[in-house]
Amino acid sequence: MKHKKYLLLYTLLTIFGVKAQQVSSPGGNISLEFSINSEGEPTYKVFYKNKTVIKSSKLGFTLKASENLNKGFELLDSETATFNETWKPVWGEESEIRNHYNELLVRLNQTTTQRVMNIRFRVFNEGVGFRYEFPEQPNLNHFVIEDEKTQFAMTGNHNAFWIPGDYDTQEYDYTESRLSEIRGLMNKSITENLSQKSFSSTGVQTALMMKTDEGLYINIHEAALIDFSVLHLELDDENFIFNAWLTPDSQGVKPYMIAPANTPWRTIMVSDDARDILASRITYNLNEPCLIEDTSWIKPVKYVGVWWEMITGKSSWAYTNDFKAVKLGVTNYNKATPNGTHGANNKHVKELIDFAALHGFDGVLVEGWNVGWEDWYGHSKDYVFDFVTPYPDFDVDEIQEYAKSKGVEMIMHHETSSSVRNYERHLDEAYKFMKDHGYNAVKSGYVGDILPRGENHYSQWMINHYQYALEKAANYKIMVNAHEAVRPTGIARTYPNLIGNEAARGTEYQAFGGSKPNHVTVLPFTRLIGGPMDYTPGIFEMDISKLNSDNKSHVNSTIANQLALYVTMYSPLQMAADLPENYNRFLDAFQFIKDVGLDWDRSLYLEAEPGSYITIARKAKGTNNWFIGNVNGKQNRESNISLDFLDKGKTYVATVYADAKDANYKTNPQAYTIKKMKVTSKSNISLKSVEAGGYAISIVEE
Amino acid sequence: MKHKKYLLLYTLLTIFGVKAQQVSSPGGNISLEFSINSEGEPTYKVFYKNKTVIKSSKLGFTLKASENLNKGFELLDSETATFNETWKPVWGEESEIRNHYNELLVRLNQTTTQRVMNIRFRVFNEGVGFRYEFPEQPNLNHFVIEDEKTQFAMTGNHNAFWIPGDYDTQEYDYTESRLSEIRGLMNKSITENLSQKSFSSTGVQTALMMKTDEGLYINIHEAALIDFSVLHLELDDENFIFNAWLTPDSQGVKPYMIAPANTPWRTIMVSDDARDILASRITYNLNEPCLIEDTSWIKPVKYVGVWWEMITGKSSWAYTNDFKAVKLGVTNYNKATPNGTHGANNKHVKELIDFAALHGFDGVLVEGWNVGWEDWYGHSKDYVFDFVTPYPDFDVDEIQEYAKSKGVEMIMHHETSSSVRNYERHLDEAYKFMKDHGYNAVKSGYVGDILPRGENHYSQWMINHYQYALEKAANYKIMVNAHEAVRPTGIARTYPNLIGNEAARGTEYQAFGGSKPNHVTVLPFTRLIGGPMDYTPGIFEMDISKLNSDNKSHVNSTIANQLALYVTMYSPLQMAADLPENYNRFLDAFQFIKDVGLDWDRSLYLEAEPGSYITIARKAKGTNNWFIGNVNGKQNRESNISLDFLDKGKTYVATVYADAKDANYKTNPQAYTIKKMKVTSKSNISLKSVEAGGYAISIVEE
Repeated sequence: MKHKKYLLLYTLLTIFGVKAQQVSSPGGNISLEFSINSEGEPTYKVFYKNKTVIKSSKLGFTLKASENLNKGFELLDSETATFNETWKPVWGEESEIRNHYNELLVRLNQTTTQRVMNIRFRVFNEGVGFRYEFPEQPNLNHFVIEDEKTQFAMTGNHNAFWIPGDYDTQEYDYTESRLSEIRGLMNKSITENLSQKSFSSTGVQTALMMKTDEGLYINIHEAALIDFSVLHLELDDENFIFNAWLTPDSQGVKPYMIAPANTPWRTIMVSDDARDILASRITYNLNEPCLIEDTSWIKPVKYVGVWWEMITGKSSWAYTNDFKAVKLGVTNYNKATPNGTHGANNKHVKELIDFAALHGFDGVLVEGWNVGWEDWYGHSKDYVFDFVTPYPDFDVDEIQEYAKSKGVEMIMHHETSSSVRNYERHLDEAYKFMKDHGYNAVKSGYVGDILPRGENHYSQWMINHYQYALEKAANYKIMVNAHEAVRPTGIARTYPNLIGNEAARGTEYQAFGGSKPNHVTVLPFTRLIGGPMDYTPGIFEMDISKLNSDNKSHVNSTIANQLALYVTMYSPLQMAADLPENYNRFLDAFQFIKDVGLDWDRSLYLEAEPGSYITIARKAKGTNNWFIGNVNGKQNRESNISLDFLDKGKTYVATVYADAKDANYKTNPQAYTIKKMKVTSKSNISLKSVEAGGYAISIVEE
Repeated sequence: MKHKKYLLLYTLLTIFGVKAQQVSSPGGNISLEFSINSEGEPTYKVFYKNKTVIKSSKLGFTLKASENLNKGFELLDSETATFNETWKPVWGEESEIRNHYNELLVRLNQTTTQRVMNIRFRVFNEGVGFRYEFPEQPNLNHFVIEDEKTQFAMTGNHNAFWIPGDYDTQEYDYTESRLSEIRGLMNKSITENLSQKSFSSTGVQTALMMKTDEGLYINIHEAALIDFSVLHLELDDENFIFNAWLTPDSQGVKPYMIAPANTPWRTIMVSDDARDILASRITYNLNEPCLIEDTSWIKPVKYVGVWWEMITGKSSWAYTNDFKAVKLGVTNYNKATPNGTHGANNKHVKELIDFAALHGFDGVLVEGWNVGWEDWYGHSKDYVFDFVTPYPDFDVDEIQEYAKSKGVEMIMHHETSSSVRNYERHLDEAYKFMKDHGYNAVKSGYVGDILPRGENHYSQWMINHYQYALEKAANYKIMVNAHEAVRPTGIARTYPNLIGNEAARGTEYQAFGGSKPNHVTVLPFTRLIGGPMDYTPGIFEMDISKLNSDNKSHVNSTIANQLALYVTMYSPLQMAADLPENYNRFLDAFQFIKDVGLDWDRSLYLEAEPGSYITIARKAKGTNNWFIGNVNGKQNRESNISLDFLDKGKTYVATVYADAKDANYKTNPQAYTIKKMKVTSKSNISLKSVEAGGYAISIVEE
């Protein structure tokens, strides 16, 4: 299934004075044209069904203390190739992924400096990826990028789903607006975060989802972000040109490069069908194949945890209120007065283990188990956690034994408080501690401003850190779910132990004031383009004051919508985030969370419109069971789907969890209906979803 | 020998309205007076033999985002105590050190904020130490120091031996001038360095040595610099007041504190005899006792090495000239063309091992043994060394075996290129690699600007790093000799595996253009106050062009002066830095380097005047052998010493290595005489030392 063929186009093209190089997608819908203009500036255009999607856009870099790499280029030669293979991910939305593209490699020489910069374009059926390559050469060795000058020139004032460009966080609600409206809406869109740094009133983040007035869906992101800094986009809102904007380090400097080196891939997905964006595997395909030889220890995990109770303020991470400042190794916790609200205590954790065992969950996450939470953020504190010392009321050995006896795995939590040197210093010991105590997965956190001070969450320095922690974890056979870290760019193909990331506004914000009702109809088009999110769905009690009378937040969602998320928000790591007592009140609905698959043979994108609705059907791996999820946006809507993907001639039992007629995400979010029915491949299903509602269906062969 | 007695003075003093607290040295020469002025500002004065040495000087701090801690104080109470004990250092200038002082502790309350700051003064016979202490308390927990406001108010326009204040280097020649002349001489005194950052045209470094017109010697430094940033001094040159100036981090911020915490000690030594400054053990005495339980593995080391040849440019650290940029793990050294000048090759290292074995040296240092030297500095390169991969022509196992067979220990070299994260990431593996290959000591280096970028060599962040590397080394039973790191502050008492530091202008500068002829008559009064220096003496060939015709540098020293340095520059780590071929030309002089002691029972400071001369006699540990060194400054001088310290009634053989009559450090530096004579405790010796000359004497019982 794999072949690669290079063609030297150079001779012909130059003989006839043809400057433009072209390459099309295998199916022919998308084509890309590369050319060098009269200034020697490399440029490209993208077309979809012969209509322009990306107008002529410049390529290149400005450098520090060296001549820029953005003009004065001549074409040395070019190559095209075709690639077509199928690979099997360790986990994913489907058990086989097709990687099919046509490639154009242009080799450019800057005549005044005799420096070579190559650009490799790959055109897939759903979009384009390109990266810069700096081969080993005499005149370009160490260099420092001042700015990436890649442009993405839009054809008009598109509609966009965007979050503010920021060097430290993606935890923003999405704003839907015309490109021209971004500037005016920027301030309002920048909501508070414990660490944030915006850079421009037209700066936005990737993955950026757009829709043109002609009905084209366009998505810009990046793939394989390794040893580089995060790509942001700054809009020239007079000309609707997005300019690349890299995240600087503490000194305002962008990536330090050593040739030979490649940049990450810049990706542009385009289709006239929004479902193609969700179905695309461009991001993974542009990453390197798996580098972990034995992946048998990497397994999807469905889990519960000691978490939502702290997020809502019902209990606390900290063990005591005695200390305003903690010095690890000095502060004596054994003499401290327990505050009575500490969540991670033996008794309570055992209750969670019992609940997990009773309902067949794989794991239990416990946050706040280790000393240091009394002053864990806001102090720029270096030695904030040691990752191995439990609070007096949490007995690691006892919990390990108890969990083992119940067939449940414990999930470790490493909040770093962004004190990154401290984390790296403890990483080996912390990972060893995990393995010694039966933990195979860790949720890591990067809350607050980075130490070393002045460093940004998305700089090259920090990208290297996340990668370091991930690769070291792989050596220990540990799965990583990093929160507040960089948003994923498909690296899980290469390191499939990266089973989760936060890097967006997750469910926690439903307890911090609530997210927009259609938030989850946007995320799969944006944040999830790069990889799975530990969104932590499954909230059944939407009135947070029921958990903590001081917290007036409301979860903007119906229970049916929460169930659907287990299908629509693909992740190999799925939490049932609410408290056992809330699940016990709705055990019939909870059944879907227990039943729903975690890993998939196939995924079908039945309906999709960013911001409005998403309906996905997935076939659980190694079974004949299907699960369907529908999440709905801001307007009531009828979803009509056909079950023609079911095996012909077979009968299945479908259990449908849907919004009740009177469901309302604000006033009546717990109103749902559950119906069982027999279905076949000839069945059609029509269901009404309310605003911020949806439905979930499990389909099991009879 | 140890007693401690606290007296509550508070009651008496306040009843009678006496505001000043006083404490005197055990011998009574020095006294210190503490008082709070009408603004509530804490102040102190220091007197020597009833004359003012430090005029009323303020104490305290300004804080970030919090009310300052420099006024509005009232005295809560005070305590005095006496301490007198003798402790045994693991290595040192004497086998027993007396720690004798009177102490005054003042407890201060800031009335408006109800925050407590204590100041602890210790008055020794040769000077004063004081530190700030922040006890655990409700209103002061996390705080950030904007500036330390400690003053050292001089009584006049003293003569000073100073180097420019700098956040990154102490590798400067000393300038001798009046305090009023510092500003005018600053620019000239700032010579080039690979990493440097000066902060003020009157900023100078500690240890600062001064002499008053009345003949008082004053030295200001600090002790026990732990979890704080380096103390510099900025001179108010209208009033001759030195103000403390702490080294900031990359964000311009000074130490982050968490109460309970203490600052390092600020020390002021004073005497009318310069020899008392050299003999003082204040810096060590103000550090905590040894924290390493088993110190049997910590041993003084006399060594040779593959080093001076690279410093002079005769050979190279790098293995090849093929690479302008190296990517560790990618760059293929096995295919590289050797440059033919690589010093650290098996054959040459074996020659050094043979030479060490022949002459009874303990160790051989090899620099440039590991991959990465082709582009090791100037590129802000992160992954610059891995500390475990040798060049193709250096076989670690073969060398280990060969050295072992010859009874010689190999000394490891870890150049970090100041890529500190990279070093910390590799530290465990690097130390393990050392122990696996028989290395028990490491010379570490911090050349160039720090990574994380913007960080300073002397910030709290970096002080923590050096301490981390040192303590981790202790866990591996590894001795550390850190170059380009912070200058020592007596921490070797607590961690005696810190057997050396550079942190000054060492012998290498004799190959970089030369140091001032009297440089080594200043260093013991300044840099060595905090701990030993790996000065790497023993250069016999002063014309560097003999080693490398491109290098026209001249070593500003005579051979006799070089020999004397083994006595005058105390260090448990002493290198014979020159090449074997140069020693082979002067084997009679070389004999002194072979004979001279490394560790001492007693040290006597026979003659001393900063910048002019130093003569020291030391009794080698566990022997009856004495070694005397004299280094001379800028003028020819006759040194007259009595040997009355020798055992009465015994006869000794003295071998005297002295400048020849016609010796001249510039034109005839290799002119020395060697004489043997019988001496007793009644002998007097009179010798003429030329400019930058000196003499060395070994005295062995007959």
